[in-house]
Amino acid sequence: MATATSSSLTAACAPSLSAHSSASSASEHLTCSSPFAKFSGLKLVSSSSTASHFFQHQNQHNKRSHGSRKAQCVRASTVDLVSVVEKSINAIRFLSIDCVEKANSGHPGLPMGCAPMGHILYDEIMKYNPKNPYWFNRDRFVLSAGHGCMLQYALFHLAGYDSVKEEDLKQFRQWKSSTPGHPENFETPGVEVTTGPLGQGICNAVGLALAEKHLAARYNKPDATIVDHYTYCIVGDGCNMEGVSNEACSLAGHWGLGKLIVFYDDNHISIDGDTAIAFTENVDQRFEALGWHVIWVKEGNTDYDAIREAIAKAKEETERPTLIKVTTTIGYGSPNKANTYSVHGSALGAKEVDATRKNLNWSHEPFCVPEDVKGHWSRHVKLGAQHEAKWQADLAAYEKKYPQEAAEFKSLISGEFPAGWAEALPKYTPESAGDATRNLSQACLNALAKVLPGLLGGSADLASSNMTLLKMFGDFQKDTPTERNLRFGVREHGMGAICNGIALHGSGLIPYCATFFVFTDYMRGAMRISALSEAGVIYVMTHDSIGLGEDGPTHQPIEHLASFRAMPNMLMLRPADGNETAGAYKVAVENRKRPSTLALSRQKLPQLAGTSIEGVEKGGYIISDNSTGNKPDLIIFGTGSELEIACKAADVIKKEGKTVRVVSLVCWELFEEQSAEYKESVIPAGVSARVSVEAGSTFGWNKYLGYKGKAVGIDHFGASAPAGILYKEFGITVENVVAKAKEVM
Amino acid sequence: MATATSSSLTAACAPSLSAHSSASSASEHLTCSSPFAKFSGLKLVSSSSTASHFFQHQNQHNKRSHGSRKAQCVRASTVDLVSVVEKSINAIRFLSIDCVEKANSGHPGLPMGCAPMGHILYDEIMKYNPKNPYWFNRDRFVLSAGHGCMLQYALFHLAGYDSVKEEDLKQFRQWKSSTPGHPENFETPGVEVTTGPLGQGICNAVGLALAEKHLAARYNKPDATIVDHYTYCIVGDGCNMEGVSNEACSLAGHWGLGKLIVFYDDNHISIDGDTAIAFTENVDQRFEALGWHVIWVKEGNTDYDAIREAIAKAKEETERPTLIKVTTTIGYGSPNKANTYSVHGSALGAKEVDATRKNLNWSHEPFCVPEDVKGHWSRHVKLGAQHEAKWQADLAAYEKKYPQEAAEFKSLISGEFPAGWAEALPKYTPESAGDATRNLSQACLNALAKVLPGLLGGSADLASSNMTLLKMFGDFQKDTPTERNLRFGVREHGMGAICNGIALHGSGLIPYCATFFVFTDYMRGAMRISALSEAGVIYVMTHDSIGLGEDGPTHQPIEHLASFRAMPNMLMLRPADGNETAGAYKVAVENRKRPSTLALSRQKLPQLAGTSIEGVEKGGYIISDNSTGNKPDLIIFGTGSELEIACKAADVIKKEGKTVRVVSLVCWELFEEQSAEYKESVIPAGVSARVSVEAGSTFGWNKYLGYKGKAVGIDHFGASAPAGILYKEFGITVENVVAKAKEVM
Repeated sequence: MATATSSSLTAACAPSLSAHSSASSASEHLTCSSPFAKFSGLKLVSSSSTASHFFQHQNQHNKRSHGSRKAQCVRASTVDLVSVVEKSINAIRFLSIDCVEKANSGHPGLPMGCAPMGHILYDEIMKYNPKNPYWFNRDRFVLSAGHGCMLQYALFHLAGYDSVKEEDLKQFRQWKSSTPGHPENFETPGVEVTTGPLGQGICNAVGLALAEKHLAARYNKPDATIVDHYTYCIVGDGCNMEGVSNEACSLAGHWGLGKLIVFYDDNHISIDGDTAIAFTENVDQRFEALGWHVIWVKEGNTDYDAIREAIAKAKEETERPTLIKVTTTIGYGSPNKANTYSVHGSALGAKEVDATRKNLNWSHEPFCVPEDVKGHWSRHVKLGAQHEAKWQADLAAYEKKYPQEAAEFKSLISGEFPAGWAEALPKYTPESAGDATRNLSQACLNALAKVLPGLLGGSADLASSNMTLLKMFGDFQKDTPTERNLRFGVREHGMGAICNGIALHGSGLIPYCATFFVFTDYMRGAMRISALSEAGVIYVMTHDSIGLGEDGPTHQPIEHLASFRAMPNMLMLRPADGNETAGAYKVAVENRKRPSTLALSRQKLPQLAGTSIEGVEKGGYIISDNSTGNKPDLIIFGTGSELEIACKAADVIKKEGKTVRVVSLVCWELFEEQSAEYKESVIPAGVSARVSVEAGSTFGWNKYLGYKGKAVGIDHFGASAPAGILYKEFGITVENVVAKAKEVM
Repeated sequence: MATATSSSLTAACAPSLSAHSSASSASEHLTCSSPFAKFSGLKLVSSSSTASHFFQHQNQHNKRSHGSRKAQCVRASTVDLVSVVEKSINAIRFLSIDCVEKANSGHPGLPMGCAPMGHILYDEIMKYNPKNPYWFNRDRFVLSAGHGCMLQYALFHLAGYDSVKEEDLKQFRQWKSSTPGHPENFETPGVEVTTGPLGQGICNAVGLALAEKHLAARYNKPDATIVDHYTYCIVGDGCNMEGVSNEACSLAGHWGLGKLIVFYDDNHISIDGDTAIAFTENVDQRFEALGWHVIWVKEGNTDYDAIREAIAKAKEETERPTLIKVTTTIGYGSPNKANTYSVHGSALGAKEVDATRKNLNWSHEPFCVPEDVKGHWSRHVKLGAQHEAKWQADLAAYEKKYPQEAAEFKSLISGEFPAGWAEALPKYTPESAGDATRNLSQACLNALAKVLPGLLGGSADLASSNMTLLKMFGDFQKDTPTERNLRFGVREHGMGAICNGIALHGSGLIPYCATFFVFTDYMRGAMRISALSEAGVIYVMTHDSIGLGEDGPTHQPIEHLASFRAMPNMLMLRPADGNETAGAYKVAVENRKRPSTLALSRQKLPQLAGTSIEGVEKGGYIISDNSTGNKPDLIIFGTGSELEIACKAADVIKKEGKTVRVVSLVCWELFEEQSAEYKESVIPAGVSARVSVEAGSTFGWNKYLGYKGKAVGIDHFGASAPAGILYKEFGITVENVVAKAKEVM
């Protein structure tokens, strides 16, 4: 079925074999992005020429016939490109083998199988500047099968990235190296996103491609293009088994992300052995069902032309994303371990390394890159600078014609916020009408969208419950890509991972996404990657407690606040009213290198006296206190919807002649970052009578309650009933807080 | 594409219209499972008869032509079945409408659209015993689109389940009712699994079907069948968007679960409106790619015969699971709200209820079931008893022929464990060879599999890392269904949800599943449902800390222990050595109503003095103490791989003349359940000098550390480097524990 429906490649080139002698100089290639550029692009000419030799490969395993074609842009006619390509591909394989061997840890199998597509991408196809890996208009590449990161490091090394020099290769998987065991964007310039947990990378790639499509639609003009790049990705069988990839790929098809080109490393081996034991679906057909253009390269180890031609065809297809299934051999070249799971995640071992060297006729020392390979790749530094310079010139020309758009675009991609943006946040007094924080959140989002051109986002099919629609914008869709409301469907995990890609596009976009707070359980994999990879995604999580009522325990978060408070680099914010919601957004927007999760109520809440944006920025602060000095009889902590209960309980106790302080602990992480003096000023060590109230797990509250304090919370699952009854039955009441307070005072 | 490849139904029946007059008595139907039974099964005869009238439906919306056929088993020839079916379907619709209206909360849209398939399933197709919802050999039904639970409650009510009487319907979504807002297996006998979070139910259904296939293969004989049921499921657009459903459905196709029949309520509406905004993939084609048999019922609101015929065809297909796409109208019957998102999750409102009553010609009072409908359904109580009695007779006959198998089978489905099973658990002394707890876990699994016939499970493509293979068994595969190693592929979330289905099959199966601990982030949605729905799944989670080393921070859990300790009804166990691993398994096996998560090391650990199975059963216990009385100078807490560090630090401090107690807090939940006396005996309130050591987040440790104690842990992400270096750099060392101890003593 797949074979019949895929675009099966019938190669149209049969060049004669011809050898060339001397190494090319970088300058010889400068006016052409690569010696294969025109081939790699769209223009293929059928007459033969010397250049056609470049597309010949000598590997005897390749039995396929070839037609002839002409590459029009070649000046380096003196280099034996056929040979150097083969050597370069083997250099990638052996750098990978050698690094894993030295570390005695790692995954050589994928780089050995994917070296051809890696080489073709980085040497012939992609636009990038190795000396400025953050150049805006670069083509993006994501190794979704992140365990094969040596592929990427080897390519960076060859291409001249400063992040991976020879000494870095030798430090593969070592403490503080720039070559960690999986690709980490925060460790290795050139790595776009953190991958490793399978399936995340392809979703990030969807986000990167979405960002490109959106910005291109917003800023490009018929006579001036300033946003124009492809997003490439390599996925393995593992990524394709993960549900999260199906979610994002369904959206990629729906959105028509025609500049997303994904290579599927179809090697039939996963850690447990042959994929036949667990993965017999028809992947091609599934991707076609998702609206993708599917191409099959049947011999991905050696048929480089087929890979090139597939890329050309993928670029011709502008309406649909393309999956290029490349059938490869894991551990290609290893005579005894290729095509087995043993080469997936372990060093080959000295004996097998030797055998592989012999088999691939590789006589070079470990870590050695042959001079002709070095010479061949050396042009990329200059070429990259030229790409960037050309783009800067284009941008300057654009600026002359479209100064206003250019100003916005430049500001956006610089990551700056427009001056005074935070003034747009709504302000409230205790007299303002009460409202659910999910509605107050919508007011913030809509206010911010007017002043922050990078803000865009949406919900996993709960826009009308999460209150996340930007009213002044339409939906981002295939044919309306300038719009800023994203419709993710019921795909929480894919949503989060796509937002990571948008955030890490590095173009000033500020993605937010939304669902019910309890369904963070579905997307925690992506949320942790936000935190780890410094992606400032804003997670708008409504229906944040039993306060949602009748939908019952599957929909009522209990342990979720605690679970995110425990997660490094995640800001967990639970605002109580309008001012705190505004404060939460101020924090979330400003934190571009860490994600924020906003827990918001379904139910209506009053505007409280004492809340403030500034308070939220400190994470914890005094809402009210009728004591003098810094020694009230009691401290009551509250967050979110229960801050009202804390205030009311305080009023009851105050009436009995006690001094009571109410503290909002809206964001524990921010509070912990305050000075010791500030923290002592809010929670004096000398006050041991403390009570907390929060409609969630009490787990973790001991930190602030000290040895004597008591927590009012819920350490069991919720139930289906009206919210008011649940609060009462579960003891999240003023009466209970007062009772607990009396126990500790 | 879908239309061409789906089994498009061409109806072959065109019975003449004939009315019947009186209500059927239950006894008239007793020898036949339902008036439609033969039709609903496989035997269709083409000649016409009175019975063929039963398959006629009068709805004028149905424009499709019909052939003629004969149902062979009908005695209730005097009832107007055509009319009563129509009435019954409308009764389901109006019970749903009325309950949602009374609660002013709920989801009427799905039950109104799915009433026909619901009616046909519960009245004509399924084998069940309403007075014993736990009868082993019942057909299973899962409403994956759980928000539509009124469909299920209405059907239970009509069928005579004691769990849903009229007063229960009137308590829909109220405190302590048996009709909560989403289906909860622990609230409502008859509900097989807890659904609500979209996508879970279909995965549970895959698990139920797997359990049936496995047990049927193990116990049925050519001349005696004791395990034989179908698993039916209704999914909506939302379930089909969720990645988790793709994971499980890919496995269902791979495993050839031919007795799984899934109805896709294709109504084109989700909460955000028309699914065209986010869901334009070709679902039929995707399921075909997953190896499913796909049938399309084009008019699911009214073409009941097409639904019946689809089920018959689904039953004919024994090699592949079947997806019956039933195109319906959400809120069918509501003149102004049908086919809109407004009918998805809100009460219709009094005015629209009236309009719908008029439109469907429904003159009955709210909650009223017409007498003829009651009469029609009344046979199910007796019929169900007959089904069960027949099965009991079959089982008795089986027992005579196969006493040994029968004994095992009966013991298994009773949930009993074989006497002395726990004796099989390995025991260790400090002199025993040290090992990684993942390897010690494998020893337990393999020892237990010999004595526990219900134990089966596997890994998400990490069997050789998680060490989860049962060596005496092969792989459960399509053609080897008796085997007990499950190969889940890289599908963590689907794996967990499938295991919930296996556990809740109620047949004594004890499912375990495995991945790296950090990837619980991918499957937390399913793990929470295990905890909520009392599914005793064993989660075998290896590589439980930075101790995994070079794979780096994406693979190193930090906050995960805390996040599960905060989750209600989840046992989070982190054993330190062989005895504690055995103890963890003893606890996990015995807890059939709550899941256990075992955090296990990748790295080798010593066998410690003082550890024991009995200690683990108490959750926390004293490993060593050189004090007399109950007042050591210091308590050091440790878990898992860091218990060794705790012991070594204690040794250092003891040498300085202090008394030190080491406490293993292997399972906080179990420890909290001990008596106050026991807890005080382990952690005396009078000892304030306390230190904990655990290679994970310190979040939550304050609970045991009191006001003065200090935690040694990791509150940031890990890094890629050899494990030993990470322990040193992150301060998880004997030296650091000793230093902290001196600070607090």
